[in-house]
This record gives sequence, C-alpha cells and structure tokens, in this order.
Amino acid sequence: MNEPATAIEAAVAASPLHQLKDELDIVIPTIRNLDFLEMWRPFLQPYHLIIVQDGDPSKTIKVPNGFDYELYNRNDINRILGPKASCISFKDSACRCFGYMVSKKKYIFTIDDDCFVAKDPSSKAINALEQHIKNLLSPSTPFFFNTLYDPFAEGADFVRGYPFSLREGVSTAVSHGLWLNIPDYDAPTQLVKPLERNTRFVDAVLTIPKGTLFPMCGMNLAFDRQLIGPAMYFGLMGEGQPIGRYDDMWAGWCIKVICDHLGLGVKTGLPYIYHSKASNPFVNLRKEYKGIYWQEDIIPFFQQVALPKDCTTVQKCYIELAKQVKEKLGKIDPYFDKLADAMVTWIQAWDGLNPTSASFSNGKTG
Amino acid sequence: MNEPATAIEAAVAASPLHQLKDELDIVIPTIRNLDFLEMWRPFLQPYHLIIVQDGDPSKTIKVPNGFDYELYNRNDINRILGPKASCISFKDSACRCFGYMVSKKKYIFTIDDDCFVAKDPSSKAINALEQHIKNLLSPSTPFFFNTLYDPFAEGADFVRGYPFSLREGVSTAVSHGLWLNIPDYDAPTQLVKPLERNTRFVDAVLTIPKGTLFPMCGMNLAFDRQLIGPAMYFGLMGEGQPIGRYDDMWAGWCIKVICDHLGLGVKTGLPYIYHSKASNPFVNLRKEYKGIYWQEDIIPFFQQVALPKDCTTVQKCYIELAKQVKEKLGKIDPYFDKLADAMVTWIQAWDGLNPTSASFSNGKTG
Repeated sequence: MNEPATAIEAAVAASPLHQLKDELDIVIPTIRNLDFLEMWRPFLQPYHLIIVQDGDPSKTIKVPNGFDYELYNRNDINRILGPKASCISFKDSACRCFGYMVSKKKYIFTIDDDCFVAKDPSSKAINALEQHIKNLLSPSTPFFFNTLYDPFAEGADFVRGYPFSLREGVSTAVSHGLWLNIPDYDAPTQLVKPLERNTRFVDAVLTIPKGTLFPMCGMNLAFDRQLIGPAMYFGLMGEGQPIGRYDDMWAGWCIKVICDHLGLGVKTGLPYIYHSKASNPFVNLRKEYKGIYWQEDIIPFFQQVALPKDCTTVQKCYIELAKQVKEKLGKIDPYFDKLADAMVTWIQAWDGLNPTSASFSNGKTG
Repeated sequence: MNEPATAIEAAVAASPLHQLKDELDIVIPTIRNLDFLEMWRPFLQPYHLIIVQDGDPSKTIKVPNGFDYELYNRNDINRILGPKASCISFKDSACRCFGYMVSKKKYIFTIDDDCFVAKDPSSKAINALEQHIKNLLSPSTPFFFNTLYDPFAEGADFVRGYPFSLREGVSTAVSHGLWLNIPDYDAPTQLVKPLERNTRFVDAVLTIPKGTLFPMCGMNLAFDRQLIGPAMYFGLMGEGQPIGRYDDMWAGWCIKVICDHLGLGVKTGLPYIYHSKASNPFVNLRKEYKGIYWQEDIIPFFQQVALPKDCTTVQKCYIELAKQVKEKLGKIDPYFDKLADAMVTWIQAWDGLNPTSASFSNGKTG
C-alpha cells in the first residue's frame, strides 16, 4: 500500500459510511487461518466478523488479533439448526450462507479468504466495503438503461431522454463487486486460458436491468439482509452433492428474479478486490461439469419464471420458487427435488432464527 | 495530440480495420464550415463523407481540403425524394438520416460537428471510428449479462456461470459511443448543473440486454446499414414540428425493439469523443418540453410493443411499428399520426433508393 495504514484508518473512521459499523456484518467462509485479514485491517477491523468454518470442526482457525468475531464450525451449525442443518452445505464455500442467517444486522459483506485489497489506477488502495455501502445506500435504476452508468455517482446524472418518472429509482438490495488479477472463469475457460489476468479497471457501477439475469459471484458481494436476505441461499453443494461451484450462481438467479418481482435493484461493477490465486481447474471441472450442462435448462427456467402477485415478501417468493423448481427442474435430475426441499428448509431455518423478519413486506410487486 | 499526425496516419493505415474504408460512410449534419474535421484528419481522411447541409441551401459549407465527400442541401433532398422529402426534418440535425438513405455502404458512422478527438487516460488520442468498427465486427450478447463486460475484448472472456450455448452471441447492429467533457443532458439537468463535466473514462463496451431500452444519442454513433439501416429514421423534428432533440431518442427506441425482435445486438460504451460545447439550455427547453412530457407515455409503449412473427425484415418491422404508433400514440397528440405516416414514407423512400435491400431478411426473429 502506498499510504500508511494509520492514514487509511483515519480516513475510514472519518467517513460518514463508518456509522454503518453497527449495522453490517462481514461473513467469511474458510478452512484456514485468516492471515489475509492483516491486509484488510485498516478497512475491516471496525466491523464485526462472522466466520463460518468449513471442513473438520476439530481444527482451530486463527484470527488475527484485534478483530471482533464469532466463529461457527459444523458442530455449531448442527447444534443451532438441528435437523434443519441439512440445508447448509459442507466442504463447500456455500456454507457461508449460514452466516447470513445468524447475523442480526441490516447489511452483509461477504468475501473469500483469497481476496486482497486491490489498487485503483492511481495505485490507491481500494476500500471495497465503502464502495459496497455507497452502492447499497443509493438507488438502483432497473427499468431503463443510463448510458453514463450510475446516475448517482459523483459527476454523473441521468442523460437526455431518461424518463423523469423513473429517476427516483428503487431500493438497492445487492451490490456485486468484481476482481482484478484472477478472473472468475469456469474450468473450461481456466484450462484454455491459464495465463489470462484481469487488468482492466472499469470505473463504473451499473444496475442490471429488470428481466436480465447475470452470473453472481460470491467472492466480493454485499447485500441488504432486510430486503433480500432470505433469498441469499447458496444451495446444496460439496460433500454428498453432485455439483459444486454453482452456489453463488444459484443464489444469483434466485435473488434476481425475486428483486425484479419485488421492484428491488441489483448493481454490479465497483468495487474491485485483488483475487490472488486461481483454483485448480481439474478439480473445478469435476465440480462444475453437471452445472455446465444443467445451466442450459436452468437459465431458461429462471428467464421465464413468473411469481404471482400475492408473493409480497421474499419468503413467499422463495417458497413459490422452490415449488416451481421442483415442478420444472425436478425432471432434469432428482438433485433438484432435494434442492427444492432444502430451499423450504432454509426458509424455515431463517424464520426460526429471525422470527420478526417473516412478515416483512419489501417494496412493491410488479 | 501527443503523437504527430503522421504517426497516427501510419497506424491508421496499418490497422486491419482500415480495409473497411470502402465499406463505410461518415455522415455529418451541419450548418457551418467543417473546420472540426482538421482534428479528425488522421483518422477520418481515408473515408468517404456524406454531408447533410441543414438550413439555408444557398449558403456554402467549406470542407477542409483532402477529404472525399458528397454534400446534400435541402434543394438536393427535395429533388431526390420529391414529395417523399416531407419525411426528412428541416432545421434540425434529424436531417442526418437522409445521409443514411443515400449511402451505398454497409456501415455508417455519424458524428456531430462539435465533437473532437478525445484522449484516453494515458493522453493518447482515441481513434473513435476504429473502436466502433471493432464493436460492430464482434458479436453482441443480449440474452445474459457478462459481469466483465465485453467478453470479446482483449484480456476478457465470459465469466463462470455464463451459459455456453449463448457464447456465440448475435450480430451487432449498433455501436453507441459516449462523450467526455459536455455530457448529453436534457435542458432541465443542464439548467440545474451548468458546470458539470464528464471526466469519467469508463473502459468498457457492453451489450444492452434484450428487453431494455436506452437513450440513444446521435452524436457519436455507428451502425450496420444492412442489418438495421431502414429503422434508423430520426423522425420529424425542427421547423414545423412541435418537438426537437428527440430525433435520436426516437430512432433509439425503434431500433432497440426491432433489434430485440430480430435477434440483433446493440452495444454502448467506448469509444469516447470530446464534446466541446453545451447547447443553449433555454432553447433546448423550448424544443424538449413536449418530449419530456410525452416520453412518459412513449417509453411504456415501446417497453410493451410486440412485433408479430411474420415481421422478418427491418422494413416489415418498421411498417408494423408505424401502425402501432398511430393506434397507440395517436391518442396523445395528432403529431404522432403525422409521425406514423412519415415513418411509412421514410420506408418507401428508403426502398426507392435501395431497391435490393427491401427483401433482406436479418437473423432470426424472437
């Protein structure tokens, strides 16, 4: 970093966004010691961490001194959820969604333990969390495309021809950040382009238009738990499941159709993190190959899914979606029957831990 | 410019894209001498210009030496189109679409005479036309959003979770470029933010998703005439009309719904030009105010318009659109009756000047 950590700490503490420190949890799934947090210390130390320990629960995960955290291993998950723990994946970073469920805060930022602080083109360290908070606190514009990107960014606005009735925008539920260095490629692309690195810094945030799906990556992601939390289920992946590396994709398809239905916004673009290490493409291929095949049917399903008007809460939408998954995707493979059941279990578990959220109504349906 | 003009000329001549010089016309609407071309000389001199002279036809427009051009004034338009000349606007840059009609080339680049060469963040002069050609020659991806933007850009690709069946993409019909310095704001925004300048260089090209409308600006625009030309009608604006500054917006709504129907792509983003001078916001307000009001109904109309399956050519789509404009928008104001008639006249005039294009079938319908 070009700036001393203390200068960054002072800037972070002075930021008006810093007030969110009591309203945001950082969720980290991991199987190893969290040394990567040292680099993030100036930005993340004020916040509370929820660490979801994957794999062997007898292993001790070391967290650098000075961080405020709670840690859950598999034994904790089983104890807290009982038989409903079956909906939480094991030996897969999909287990992170348990952290969303036990949080009591309004906002979640989730990050992988191989993600470091990126630098902008002026070599300044990027405060990823600050940008996510900006994204979540400013409206989204899903109904019409603004050619100068985020109209709420400094020095930007709505361009000529943007309908004035749509300029108020809608509440932002999700902020999807990107990655410099190792791009988030599937195994076939990793195999074909082992040396490709992402060096393009695109200085933009944009709303993904209504009706358009996108591949949501869980590596650098923030969301409003009150608005969309119960739909942020990362599915059944890893041990005992026929598929991996589709946890965040599944969540992305689900949250997008529910946000579109409830009139909520999803943004992508800034902030960047620095993704340090490519995962093994051969292992990834084994995890992914069924997903690569199945997504050719899953995506048309999500493109066409319609939620009835009486689905006015995220929970109602999600239960309806589970029903349609069972009906329409169950034909592809029995896995989708099991997944649909797990989606229902997830909502039961969520409502059990968040008793007041079950009746929340979010925005307008449309 | 940091580079000598001769070095730029050599680079332009060496580019493989230079081969398009016999397949592309540059269309410029103007009321003044074209001194602005001096700055563009290294990039644009190899290409043929079609100059559409607006306003008083007795005035002589000076074109810098060395440019190959044809020039049409109002007398020429009246002579060539006869009574059908009524569909070409007068005293408004909407007249530029006459140039699209008389061109015999596959591609069009149109640019305003207050647009200069912009510089990228490394202070290198941007070859806007080269970027437009790259955009038009590479596929678009309207059916699913790629979070790393243009997957065909150097160093980029489709990210994990992007369906493989959609990676071939579709033909690109339109490339919409952006503007540094003076942003393309409507009169109210100009009045409220007179000092705002666009300094944000966003290094991205992206496909506007299927089903999403955008505000298309005619200042820095390229398109494939064979694929979408007959829909690039800039409407009835200026003298004798109740509205101005909606010419490119009208064309943008029409081309987008037709591209969506025919399975063609529309891109926006790079290249930037440098927009030198803000137009008068008070004059603009007078031209725009009905459009600002009407667009609140026009945009829902275009968002919901459906073209029947048997509309397999741009012409058929456009005639159908004219019919629906008359039916649905005629209620707002008699202007839309007149506009719908002019849309039909435009297609008749286009087919008269382009007899073989009338039966072209573009891509698949959807």
